Amino acid sequence: MNTDAYQQLCQIFRRISRFDHLSAVAGWDMQTMMPAGGSRARGEALAELSVLRHQLLTGKQVGELLSAAQQQSLNEDERASLYEMTRQWQQASLLPDELVEAKAIAGSECEHAWRTQRPANDWRGFSANLRKVVALSRREAQIRASASGTSPYDALLGLYEPGMTRQTLDPVFADLKQWLPGLLQQVVSKQSQALPLQPEGIFPQAAQKQLGLQVMALLGFDFNHGRLDVSAHPFCGGVPDDVRITTRYDEKLFLSALMGVIHETGHARYEQNLPRRFAGLPVAQARSTAIHESQSLLLEMQLARSPGFLQLIQPLVAETFGSQPALETDNFIRLAQQVKPGVIRVDADEVSYPAHVMLRYEIEQALIDGIIEVEDIPALWDEKMHHYLGLDTRGNFKDGCMQDIHWTDGSFGYFPTYTLGAMYAAQLFASAHQQLPSLGEQISRGDLQPLFGWLEKNIWQHGSRLSTSELITKATGEGLNSQFFRRHLEKRYLG
Amino acid sequence: MNTDAYQQLCQIFRRISRFDHLSAVAGWDMQTMMPAGGSRARGEALAELSVLRHQLLTGKQVGELLSAAQQQSLNEDERASLYEMTRQWQQASLLPDELVEAKAIAGSECEHAWRTQRPANDWRGFSANLRKVVALSRREAQIRASASGTSPYDALLGLYEPGMTRQTLDPVFADLKQWLPGLLQQVVSKQSQALPLQPEGIFPQAAQKQLGLQVMALLGFDFNHGRLDVSAHPFCGGVPDDVRITTRYDEKLFLSALMGVIHETGHARYEQNLPRRFAGLPVAQARSTAIHESQSLLLEMQLARSPGFLQLIQPLVAETFGSQPALETDNFIRLAQQVKPGVIRVDADEVSYPAHVMLRYEIEQALIDGIIEVEDIPALWDEKMHHYLGLDTRGNFKDGCMQDIHWTDGSFGYFPTYTLGAMYAAQLFASAHQQLPSLGEQISRGDLQPLFGWLEKNIWQHGSRLSTSELITKATGEGLNSQFFRRHLEKRYLG
Repeated sequence: MNTDAYQQLCQIFRRISRFDHLSAVAGWDMQTMMPAGGSRARGEALAELSVLRHQLLTGKQVGELLSAAQQQSLNEDERASLYEMTRQWQQASLLPDELVEAKAIAGSECEHAWRTQRPANDWRGFSANLRKVVALSRREAQIRASASGTSPYDALLGLYEPGMTRQTLDPVFADLKQWLPGLLQQVVSKQSQALPLQPEGIFPQAAQKQLGLQVMALLGFDFNHGRLDVSAHPFCGGVPDDVRITTRYDEKLFLSALMGVIHETGHARYEQNLPRRFAGLPVAQARSTAIHESQSLLLEMQLARSPGFLQLIQPLVAETFGSQPALETDNFIRLAQQVKPGVIRVDADEVSYPAHVMLRYEIEQALIDGIIEVEDIPALWDEKMHHYLGLDTRGNFKDGCMQDIHWTDGSFGYFPTYTLGAMYAAQLFASAHQQLPSLGEQISRGDLQPLFGWLEKNIWQHGSRLSTSELITKATGEGLNSQFFRRHLEKRYLG
Repeated sequence: MNTDAYQQLCQIFRRISRFDHLSAVAGWDMQTMMPAGGSRARGEALAELSVLRHQLLTGKQVGELLSAAQQQSLNEDERASLYEMTRQWQQASLLPDELVEAKAIAGSECEHAWRTQRPANDWRGFSANLRKVVALSRREAQIRASASGTSPYDALLGLYEPGMTRQTLDPVFADLKQWLPGLLQQVVSKQSQALPLQPEGIFPQAAQKQLGLQVMALLGFDFNHGRLDVSAHPFCGGVPDDVRITTRYDEKLFLSALMGVIHETGHARYEQNLPRRFAGLPVAQARSTAIHESQSLLLEMQLARSPGFLQLIQPLVAETFGSQPALETDNFIRLAQQVKPGVIRVDADEVSYPAHVMLRYEIEQALIDGIIEVEDIPALWDEKMHHYLGLDTRGNFKDGCMQDIHWTDGSFGYFPTYTLGAMYAAQLFASAHQQLPSLGEQISRGDLQPLFGWLEKNIWQHGSRLSTSELITKATGEGLNSQFFRRHLEKRYLG
């Protein structure tokens, strides 16, 4: 028996994390800095790295060391660490190499073609590629499901939110379906009685960036370990020691870039505060996609769109762009809280957003289960869009079922984590207020440290040491409870 | 016998080039974008990559495949390619792993400490570290010399300029020593009769950058395969498909950043035009450090400081910064051609520069041969600085023998390639003019295509297919001839 197995595993996983570091830098650069002509060589270099990572992670030695380490006497942290190593190894090892390769090729072809097919509204061309991706994702789901004894869709969902199943999630969405469309109508009707003034003028990119940096500083972003740049699609990348967030600027609007920066700062603070003592090990990584999203939405939706926070930053905004009626406090709050159902998910307000997710959740399940085929997507999309949001997307594929990148490379099971994140955010923010009675008043004063201290203690410092369910239960006294989210929306928008 | 050996080698070297791609991106990012707090993790990731590269290159398989490929029937290009593969493999395989590691550690410690020791003028502290580096470089030189049957110093020189030896170089520098100090005095005395006006005012960084980009475009830089950024020490990095050059801006001076951009554009055009048909193979790489420098100096010194080119860009300069007497054509030319001996190599004009190289060449040879020790460097430095440049560096270690980074990590043998580059540049530029009689007139008109076509045909497209000596002979009809450089200086500065 290899008594050193656990330490050897740590060495292997730290090597893998160094490959991931390089992949994160090269990926960030590709989105922010790289001229177009560099893409072929970059793609090849990244593919080489991902093959190498896969080989290292799935090598025979790792399986043997994992078995050996199971027999070792480990403390609680080490046991959690070993559990996460095992999970990553299983996820990577389950699929045969030919399937991994076929998925990578089909996904990359589908995504690449989508970039021109979407603007051309070319559903016919896109669906031909998507069929191949779906066929491979179904195979993947079957293989993962047999290994874990779950349903095929649950097996994919678990890649993003370990432990989450349709059994838990279906009732949450069924409940949401009952009250959300009605609430949305009520909010729109209420807001129509006093629509906000829209800010007028040009909001120069350089000024928007300065404002973004000031707000990041207010939110505790550590600029010694990260930076802000521009990309076509905003994201949070990099590594915990060097977190790279991005935004995009529209000089006629400033609120979307500002709220985007706050959103990515939520992701960034989680990454920057992951436990350093496990650096490079899977247990030091963020718990899940949904918990990550809960941190971005807690900052963007729970905190930054609250009247207290908006009052706090209003002087900064007015100072940056000059005073105008639309930027006065009352109107500024109404602007930031305006609800406007639209066909595009990424532009949606927090009331409409879950409807976008719900329809994708329903369609992708049926797709993975083989109940529908790719050809059936547009009709279902149009019907649900009409039903949940009262909007018409017929014939408008580019702003309908072709709008997202997720399905192009087979990321089925990802969408629900957006709404799970929103629900966790509401539950966590409510618990923080309950446990820290002065929190609301502290936020209005600009003293955000108590909130961040609470998040660090309850979420950030744990990495993946606890399951999502343990993490939420320890922080809030109960498991996922979607009523916090409902109460939050009702209070903010109808209260 | 493995009939496929050559193709297998190509696969291995293409993999290595993908690691080099990642290393280039992460290295560029470190110098231009990375916040300070990211350095530890970045250093670890880059070290991991360099270990991996070394393992892949020196693996037993590579040696066997190289032997097998020798027996294959290969065409001329493939034979040149195999020769370069063999050279890289030998260079990497010759040193025992413990020496590679000891060098990396001693070099990194010496360089790291130097960053604070230099500003503190701490020769005592620095020399203690440098002694370790020198001891390891002497071992390296011995090992490489025994393997190649050359002298120890030649073995190091050959790492940067394959095929170059002291036997060729000593007479070149001996000749230089005869005429350069006198020429320098004559030039300074001549110029003192009509010193140029210095430009006055603030030259904003953004305007300097715009001017730099315009001049890069004039010089044919391909912005679809590269970009310009800022770093503390200007460099040309990236990969041929995506060449990253940098500069630094001083808002009180603009000429040094502008000339720096032109210099790096010379490196960049060589990289961007290396032969694509061998992409990823050693034979597709730049021939040598000296040939690389010849391309940057051909653009910066031969072309860009010529009256024809300065007249061409003077309107751009005046338009960018507004007119003032110092920017009128005659004065602008005198500014760009001003000779001012100083103690700092990187700030030196083209007449003083070889003196800086000469003194380093003499000292580093004696050091590697064991004729002097680290303790002896300052006295020799001061004496030669006095002798060649008439300047006093006694006690001023930071602007004397501690000013360069090269020796800190054991890059002995590098310095002479700067002057070789200047000589090749003069020889190539003179030959281009001889072979293209309208070239001078074309340059004055802003038609630079004939010059670039000539460089592409004679230098860029060859990569490492020819030796330096073959390359220069094919392009100019003779081997290295330092008289072209002398005639260039005499004509420009005394003519």
